Amino acid sequence: MALKNDLLLRALKQQDTERTPVWAMRQAGRYLPEYREVRKQAGDFMSLAKNPEMVCEVTLQPLRRFPLDGVIIFSDILTIPDAMGLGLYFVTGEGPKFKNPISSERDVDNLPKIDVNSDLQYVMDGIALTSKTLDNAVPLLGFCGSPWTLLTYMVEGGSSKTFAKAKAFLLNHSQAAHKLLQKLTDASIDYLNAQIESGANAVQVFDSWGGALSPELYQVFSLDYMKQIVAGVKSKNPETPVILFSKGVEYNLSIMADSGADCLGVDWTTDLSLARKLTSGKVALQGNLDPCVLYADDEVIESEVRKVLNSFGQGNGHVFNLGHGMHPGMQPEKLAVMVNAVRKYSKR
Amino acid sequence: MALKNDLLLRALKQQDTERTPVWAMRQAGRYLPEYREVRKQAGDFMSLAKNPEMVCEVTLQPLRRFPLDGVIIFSDILTIPDAMGLGLYFVTGEGPKFKNPISSERDVDNLPKIDVNSDLQYVMDGIALTSKTLDNAVPLLGFCGSPWTLLTYMVEGGSSKTFAKAKAFLLNHSQAAHKLLQKLTDASIDYLNAQIESGANAVQVFDSWGGALSPELYQVFSLDYMKQIVAGVKSKNPETPVILFSKGVEYNLSIMADSGADCLGVDWTTDLSLARKLTSGKVALQGNLDPCVLYADDEVIESEVRKVLNSFGQGNGHVFNLGHGMHPGMQPEKLAVMVNAVRKYSKR
Repeated sequence: MALKNDLLLRALKQQDTERTPVWAMRQAGRYLPEYREVRKQAGDFMSLAKNPEMVCEVTLQPLRRFPLDGVIIFSDILTIPDAMGLGLYFVTGEGPKFKNPISSERDVDNLPKIDVNSDLQYVMDGIALTSKTLDNAVPLLGFCGSPWTLLTYMVEGGSSKTFAKAKAFLLNHSQAAHKLLQKLTDASIDYLNAQIESGANAVQVFDSWGGALSPELYQVFSLDYMKQIVAGVKSKNPETPVILFSKGVEYNLSIMADSGADCLGVDWTTDLSLARKLTSGKVALQGNLDPCVLYADDEVIESEVRKVLNSFGQGNGHVFNLGHGMHPGMQPEKLAVMVNAVRKYSKR
Repeated sequence: MALKNDLLLRALKQQDTERTPVWAMRQAGRYLPEYREVRKQAGDFMSLAKNPEMVCEVTLQPLRRFPLDGVIIFSDILTIPDAMGLGLYFVTGEGPKFKNPISSERDVDNLPKIDVNSDLQYVMDGIALTSKTLDNAVPLLGFCGSPWTLLTYMVEGGSSKTFAKAKAFLLNHSQAAHKLLQKLTDASIDYLNAQIESGANAVQVFDSWGGALSPELYQVFSLDYMKQIVAGVKSKNPETPVILFSKGVEYNLSIMADSGADCLGVDWTTDLSLARKLTSGKVALQGNLDPCVLYADDEVIESEVRKVLNSFGQGNGHVFNLGHGMHPGMQPEKLAVMVNAVRKYSKR
């Protein structure tokens, strides 16, 4: 059956739309009291993420509040390394951690090949249930982390400010690093294809830490693997739009435009007008309001939304979004102001 | 008396040099055991920073180990807000904090005008003593924080990941923000001129958080004030080179090139070849080895140093540096490998 609202899919393919579609990264999450309620029932984060009914519920929560043009399945980018046996857990205030981080080529060799349909069945079940419950109201997005971003957590054992261990791993053990990135890439291709087969209408690759690398290392250790992921998805699901989002890479947008992806995420530190120039119309662009604007007064939010719309300018291929995810402490009402402003000011 | 080694000053003015001069941001500091010894004697960080003999000692420590082409006075970017009465203190592992952060226009109005020669006499005494002790061996750099970067700490009360409060202050109280930035700018001009009069041969403005702003906000709330600082220094000390370093601003390098500064710092996420294009020869460039390269094996450090030198290419106006400061956990020997590689491979 056709989607009732397919604005997002059309924009991702640079087709005509009546207005700019809008969603927000991390639109399901802690800033919503109804999310916190479910999370409390679940106990810890992974118990929520592994429960398809709860995943469906929290994925759809933002859509009940805001007239969004898409929802993204509630999950975490670290499900693949968890399925590989690294033991993902969350410490409040410290972010994700792994019980068994990677520190040698031997660790990489010992990582098992995963079967996404069984090892990550909980994700597919969550997507299938959410897709059914959505009843074609708006597109459902699936996602994965980029291989480089996953590597940082797997080698650091958790979050990092400097990525000292992860970068030393790239530089001193580049063969092992490439082997690890290839394993993650292969699993990610299967993972995204399985998500699409379970009901995802588009998929996004989150390269949260691509911007921590020099341009040369970014290309070799991050972008080249994301290109493989795009190709792997396109070979099985040529019609499904793929979004790549590398945070903080600016200048690299020009080489990303040739990755085969349909759309590139752009953070707020690059003007969309510049991003359009760098990408020469080859891809749609998604972004890029600074999430911190949602701490401002309503009229400031409206005016900043208009600036983003104007910065993209005329033409197809803009998906409005934040330049990064919602923060846990934000007021839900502020996201409503943003969404309504996009709907109001982007009408063709 | 003339400097015995003035390579750094010549490179900052894009004059001929026999090789590329080199120093490292945060080259004096915790990664050196002899620094930790002095710090232990001093007790806390501010007791060290306010003791001119100790400041002189730790400023010169790296020069005893490595054949550097410049030293930078040991101090902190937050001395100005501290002198304004915000009460700077340091919590181990959490970075700098202020006892009395800014939260309203009234707080801004109540900030006293400082007299840098008395309120920050300890900095001038440290510079004078270091300059005398250096005996013209290499140039001595002075520095300050950028007004926007100071504002983030003053409004947040310390470090921040998202700059939520600081950005909300810009957006919701822009008049108060401009008033605060102007006060900081006026004090910074006096501060840098006093440092030069005390013996600093060049000065650097550290805009550590410029890259957190959108290009529009960056120009209005950070760059415009740094331009004032450059002009204020140049009006009193036209011959003294001024370096601006905004971390993570990439494409803004082109507008920074017209700031009046002699040199721009560049982090490792922008290729120096692109930075040269963006700045059209108007300024010298300083940078930009990823500090994490110093976690790698010696031969990798050498090869990465060569890549940075090659990325700048032929011509005058390159000061080799890291793209950010030394990390506290680094091995001093690794900095020696970097410095020696620059000296070896950059010979004309």
